[in-house]
Amino acid sequence: MPAFSPPDFTTPELVQAPDATFLPAPSHGVLPDGFFSSTNLPTYVKRNGQWIMPREPRMDSAIVLASDDTLWTREGRRLRKGDLVAIGKAEDGTEGILVHFASFTEDTGDGEFQFMSSDVSREKPIDYSLMASILVDERDRQGYPIWVAGPALVHSRARSDMAWFISNGFVGALLAGNAVAVHDIEASIYGTTLGMTQTGKSTAGGHALHMRAINQIRACGSIAKAVEKGIVKDGIMYSCVKHKVPFVLTGSIRDDGPLPDVITDAIAGQDAMRQHAIKATMAIMIATALHAIATGNMLPAFVTEKDGTLRDLATICVDSAEFVVSKLKDRGTHQAFGVVTNAQDFMHILRLYVERELAARAMMPAGKAIAR
Amino acid sequence: MPAFSPPDFTTPELVQAPDATFLPAPSHGVLPDGFFSSTNLPTYVKRNGQWIMPREPRMDSAIVLASDDTLWTREGRRLRKGDLVAIGKAEDGTEGILVHFASFTEDTGDGEFQFMSSDVSREKPIDYSLMASILVDERDRQGYPIWVAGPALVHSRARSDMAWFISNGFVGALLAGNAVAVHDIEASIYGTTLGMTQTGKSTAGGHALHMRAINQIRACGSIAKAVEKGIVKDGIMYSCVKHKVPFVLTGSIRDDGPLPDVITDAIAGQDAMRQHAIKATMAIMIATALHAIATGNMLPAFVTEKDGTLRDLATICVDSAEFVVSKLKDRGTHQAFGVVTNAQDFMHILRLYVERELAARAMMPAGKAIAR
Amino acid sequence: MPAFSPPDFTTPELVQAPDATFLPAPSHGVLPDGFFSSTNLPTYVKRNGQWIMPREPRMDSAIVLASDDTLWTREGRRLRKGDLVAIGKAEDGTEGILVHFASFTEDTGDGEFQFMSSDVSREKPIDYSLMASILVDERDRQGYPIWVAGPALVHSRARSDMAWFISNGFVGALLAGNAVAVHDIEASIYGTTLGMTQTGKSTAGGHALHMRAINQIRACGSIAKAVEKGIVKDGIMYSCVKHKVPFVLTGSIRDDGPLPDVITDAIAGQDAMRQHAIKATMAIMIATALHAIATGNMLPAFVTEKDGTLRDLATICVDSAEFVVSKLKDRGTHQAFGVVTNAQDFMHILRLYVERELAARAMMPAGKAIAR
Amino acid sequence: MPAFSPPDFTTPELVQAPDATFLPAPSHGVLPDGFFSSTNLPTYVKRNGQWIMPREPRMDSAIVLASDDTLWTREGRRLRKGDLVAIGKAEDGTEGILVHFASFTEDTGDGEFQFMSSDVSREKPIDYSLMASILVDERDRQGYPIWVAGPALVHSRARSDMAWFISNGFVGALLAGNAVAVHDIEASIYGTTLGMTQTGKSTAGGHALHMRAINQIRACGSIAKAVEKGIVKDGIMYSCVKHKVPFVLTGSIRDDGPLPDVITDAIAGQDAMRQHAIKATMAIMIATALHAIATGNMLPAFVTEKDGTLRDLATICVDSAEFVVSKLKDRGTHQAFGVVTNAQDFMHILRLYVERELAARAMMPAGKAIAR
Repeated sequence: MPAFSPPDFTTPELVQAPDATFLPAPSHGVLPDGFFSSTNLPTYVKRNGQWIMPREPRMDSAIVLASDDTLWTREGRRLRKGDLVAIGKAEDGTEGILVHFASFTEDTGDGEFQFMSSDVSREKPIDYSLMASILVDERDRQGYPIWVAGPALVHSRARSDMAWFISNGFVGALLAGNAVAVHDIEASIYGTTLGMTQTGKSTAGGHALHMRAINQIRACGSIAKAVEKGIVKDGIMYSCVKHKVPFVLTGSIRDDGPLPDVITDAIAGQDAMRQHAIKATMAIMIATALHAIATGNMLPAFVTEKDGTLRDLATICVDSAEFVVSKLKDRGTHQAFGVVTNAQDFMHILRLYVERELAARAMMPAGKAIAR
Repeated sequence: MPAFSPPDFTTPELVQAPDATFLPAPSHGVLPDGFFSSTNLPTYVKRNGQWIMPREPRMDSAIVLASDDTLWTREGRRLRKGDLVAIGKAEDGTEGILVHFASFTEDTGDGEFQFMSSDVSREKPIDYSLMASILVDERDRQGYPIWVAGPALVHSRARSDMAWFISNGFVGALLAGNAVAVHDIEASIYGTTLGMTQTGKSTAGGHALHMRAINQIRACGSIAKAVEKGIVKDGIMYSCVKHKVPFVLTGSIRDDGPLPDVITDAIAGQDAMRQHAIKATMAIMIATALHAIATGNMLPAFVTEKDGTLRDLATICVDSAEFVVSKLKDRGTHQAFGVVTNAQDFMHILRLYVERELAARAMMPAGKAIAR
Repeated sequence: MPAFSPPDFTTPELVQAPDATFLPAPSHGVLPDGFFSSTNLPTYVKRNGQWIMPREPRMDSAIVLASDDTLWTREGRRLRKGDLVAIGKAEDGTEGILVHFASFTEDTGDGEFQFMSSDVSREKPIDYSLMASILVDERDRQGYPIWVAGPALVHSRARSDMAWFISNGFVGALLAGNAVAVHDIEASIYGTTLGMTQTGKSTAGGHALHMRAINQIRACGSIAKAVEKGIVKDGIMYSCVKHKVPFVLTGSIRDDGPLPDVITDAIAGQDAMRQHAIKATMAIMIATALHAIATGNMLPAFVTEKDGTLRDLATICVDSAEFVVSKLKDRGTHQAFGVVTNAQDFMHILRLYVERELAARAMMPAGKAIAR
Repeated sequence: MPAFSPPDFTTPELVQAPDATFLPAPSHGVLPDGFFSSTNLPTYVKRNGQWIMPREPRMDSAIVLASDDTLWTREGRRLRKGDLVAIGKAEDGTEGILVHFASFTEDTGDGEFQFMSSDVSREKPIDYSLMASILVDERDRQGYPIWVAGPALVHSRARSDMAWFISNGFVGALLAGNAVAVHDIEASIYGTTLGMTQTGKSTAGGHALHMRAINQIRACGSIAKAVEKGIVKDGIMYSCVKHKVPFVLTGSIRDDGPLPDVITDAIAGQDAMRQHAIKATMAIMIATALHAIATGNMLPAFVTEKDGTLRDLATICVDSAEFVVSKLKDRGTHQAFGVVTNAQDFMHILRLYVERELAARAMMPAGKAIAR
């Protein structure tokens, strides 16, 4: 059990701190403006020069001075008109109220009681505007953003958005596995992914379609040849081939086929990925734990600019669950910024914001930066 | 252990079925067109009038006839040019290959081996186009869509999209809890939710802001009065008040405050919700297990039209995790259609599609229906 | 929108069905014994020979006959003493009440309104007793259970339980990746996994320990040689080596090292796994999506006994989230039975139940089967 | 983008630091003992008195001195026998290698590159031994542990374990909702929960059983009277009644019934819960977001002992997903310790460990404490 270390009340700041102020509740169940909102940490209120702990501590409540001069923690709804309520926003004693953050040895002591302090949460807003701006900046400065994708990207119909990013110069290299390419090519040839239509229905004989797609590419000898022959006519792999965006498809033991372009040896696959990782100036990882962690392992947390200065390597990790982002960080990729959402929706909105950003920049006088 | 019931090979269909056809592999590791793609279920191939099981069964493979007339299940990549491969797509014996779906007593026997047959999955595409069309149809026919929302809707900045739906006639009634209104009002007054800015940063003193927002509304006496006084100037609750869209805020034991509009008794709350449930012609449940299940409990699975005919009551349940949708179905709301994504992204894309649908309909000659 | 198909009230069963019975509520808010509990599906009550739909349908409620002879769906709590309540358990009309399950075209028509009908859910009880019995049966009949494991098994301290299963004859073969062996060996040499102690604390220099462990095995040339030299003294890999239980370690692009025993080529890895899959009589997959799906792909859903009869191939998939099990099923491994729990806890309780099963069987007279 | 602040190489520590040491690789792909294991953060190696950054930085690799005196980051497997490898464990420059943790402004600067630093993860071991010891300590010192439970506890058959804790003095009070009591009582009367048997099968007419159970208790007037009449014969509520352990059942809008003991007003419910929260010396929250957050809101993070000293209020939060624990912390209950597992398994193993702890203490001479 962590041991408690009480505050040092002999410091000049605490000695000189004023008594706390109290104001009456304006009506039943309503607090006076500026009321102190309590936390669940040890709290001391200065009263007649003494630091006293209010009784029955809890968060989200008021501190009330009873007629017998005792102090209580009380929910606002329980107050009666005229009850005396402690006033103040400061938690460091300067207004006569001290919240003792560093009270237990394991406390991180970041200086303030906070809500929403978790690293990754589906409850946090997603700043698409910032991400779009970083992506456009990367393109403008000829950076090398690497995109790392799992098959959910294709299943969930974000194919055309991914193809758009490839075609418009936002992708330095694409790192993925056999399945991404298989589903993308199945979609191009048959209009399905794992036999499921774009609206999520199963099709008759659908379970065989990815095998038929693979077989066609194997017969051609490579994805590029299948594009050349007109067998693959759109989508992610098609766009990579057409726009000469390099891709690395690495193998895994769950692969069907695999496609002829897949590097089946893990060591050779790592070496091929690493050739792109050492050039990366940004990383976007979508719906894949395996490839995200593999890439995270081989990425520095920073970019070395040509002039030798360093900057953060923006690393975005998108997944339906907080767990994948936490796992990536737990393997040392602490710089990863987590976005908890569906891959399809992420791609669609990101594209929309990038299009807006491009439109906004196009309307600006040359040489002007966008104030942010 | 489920018991096995072998196929009845004496039925006329199976007796009259032809022998299976075999074609040679065109090159190493490539299958002939029309190859049969195996499943993991008991499979029988007709050869010289006999139904024989290929050895070493597995899915996603070919069935190969060896030179000693034995049959094997083999991955395509292992074939050599000229190997004889079974041909066929039918799994019912009509092409000489029978997949025995109903082989074990617990089998559901839905007649075909399938992939992606789960009820709810983040891997399934989201059909925003269909949902937008249903919503616009509901408005056109003066339906009563009820929206049921959890606080993640507000946290994650979908406030303005929700307000848009309210203002534009797509919301019959809003059913929610204290927290949705508190965060929405905190956002209107302070620009934060639980002290977090729109870009996800914590603010100084942020943990107290929702308490200060609640206190202001309590001082006014109701949300409507706070709107009237100009304290609440935008957002979800503001739009409900301005557009006279009814809302029910029901209480829970985790509520701060609560706001004066909240019905704190669960029975009275259910009765208030039920007044809207009996009128509902559609339900959209977003980021809430508690309110979604409560509403599901009191909704019929169908709508009775004025002429007495029945139709499905479209019920959409949006959550970051499959679990909430499964739980809702496990409590009997089987008609729920699950959308696994982030609430903010869902709202943004749904609005976009509804705007497109409205634009498309506006351009159509009066009286014409949209072909679907 | 699914179309509604009304019941055929002209069938002899429905024509001959009796009128529904009604009994008075014994007191306020209390229903008579045997009350009919409503569903959310279209429901018809026979009254004076007519099939009538009660108004305001919902589930979990009673059907009440008002004094004006109308029928209503009412929550039990709203009833007054003496209110007339429909009686019956049958939903097929034989007691005068018909629930129309197959009312919408997409209905699966499994014949009864049910709760908890989802395939996989953390809310379902885990039948350890059955799993223990199957495992002991497998050992008794010299089956070949394959265990497929992810690194969470080792992280979370289930090492000693896994080693116990290996040492006691319950493991035909172990299929895993580099990480399982790395963390297991790090634990044997340094007492940590990824630098974290058995109680979950980080250690100084901890991030390097798995690299040091790998380096030691690479210096030895193989895991078996490291066991021989006394470098690896306990755990999963140690037990496999000591008890000559075959293992296959397949590589992936996120591997550190890798260990010398790892098959880095995915195709060669699949072929090595397949040698065990074709012999498998049971499969237990723990905390791994990649290896579980890979193994599921190459497993038949059934076992062919020596006498040619078939039986179900018991396939257990353990994961913290429903998603991995659903994903496995969505790739065709429909026979998988999902257990949603923590890998460490699963292993600990399963071992306990197997020990109990062994003790129970040991006390039985020879030749007696355990009644189940 | 966070700005980079380079290290201050003029500090005496760094000026006086020695050059880094290099040793040759003993064979191909094997590192020398004591090799420095790299991180992904900016790293400087002292060479001839200069601090130089090795090229191509990444984690989990070695730092190699090439024959042209340049430094490279290289995976161990790529080394050739005799390659010169940097040696050292210290990351603060004292061995000639400096890892610059505080390089970017947002870095928390906790002083060391770490793996597994997330707050809550299913990959962390669960220290049942510590939890058992705390629970037994609480009982010994006549503490007041409050248990807060969701219905998954009952669904998943942990009923008998929960009843054991109640009967054996480990529960100060039980805080739960209507559903926990309903499912527990359904299990006692009918042997099912929501119509599902203990092995997870659905039963005919099962969807009505919880309604029938509720109706029986409503007819009795209270749970205690149903126990008295012999209608409820075992389980959680039975044990509370028999052992006079207080319980608070608070209502929610999704409640069926509710049971007569349920406090349906949220404010009254909070007040009833708060009477136990102010006495709590420990909190165990299992499988409930709503009740856990409600209780967390009203709990201090500490216990005030009779002598006025403070200690940590041990708060354990058990859930199948990391999200609930993160959410609880994000609402200010930072002291919560997360256990990510299935409720049934948690209860079973915790009971086992408590039984072992009791047996161990029973065998000790009176007055002796257990060394820990």
